[in-house]
Amino acid sequence: MSSKIVDGLEPPYYVVTFTTLISKDAGDDYHAMAERMVDLAKTMPGYLGVESARDGGLGITLSYWQTEADIKHWKMEAEHTEARHKGREKWYDAYNLKVAKVERCYAFKKS
Amino acid sequence: MSSKIVDGLEPPYYVVTFTTLISKDAGDDYHAMAERMVDLAKTMPGYLGVESARDGGLGITLSYWQTEADIKHWKMEAEHTEARHKGREKWYDAYNLKVAKVERCYAFKKS
Repeated sequence: MSSKIVDGLEPPYYVVTFTTLISKDAGDDYHAMAERMVDLAKTMPGYLGVESARDGGLGITLSYWQTEADIKHWKMEAEHTEARHKGREKWYDAYNLKVAKVERCYAFKKS
Repeated sequence: MSSKIVDGLEPPYYVVTFTTLISKDAGDDYHAMAERMVDLAKTMPGYLGVESARDGGLGITLSYWQTEADIKHWKMEAEHTEARHKGREKWYDAYNLKVAKVERCYAFKKS
């Protein structure tokens, strides 16, 4: 997964916040899927970046997109659709996905 | 920090995404500040919840607010303002803060 801050984007654009609790049974196939979905998202139109962190059971993934239409397109992508179904069956105890329009942004970098 | 999914909010509302890289020198005082800021945020008008995860150096904190005015009010809160200054001096190598309006939300919970 990515461990970099996504920087330099100019509002307006969209963020998808994906907050997850993974099940105790989620194993290597979950991690392989998560990495595959990041690689696949990068190939989609309107993709601007991804940030991800997991702390014990709670995971937060932020993905950035140019337009709402790009997010809907990504949602319907075939392999992603299959992963979403498997996620509900096997990997996730719970999740919450929010689509939000970024209005302002502040960046800091130590000089 | 919170390890629960924030659920049951009705759009529209706001999310502040706060993505951080902490410096290698950030010690116990950083963690004490982070916990204090969560406790303080909970007392502010319009606060709806917080989610947080850190994976090695990269941290993601999502805080939810009813209105943009609530976010500005929280930004100007005195103790929070001091923590923000210290954060730039001592704790963070870099951060990116985005203010976004939540338009849609999907929840899943295993039955």
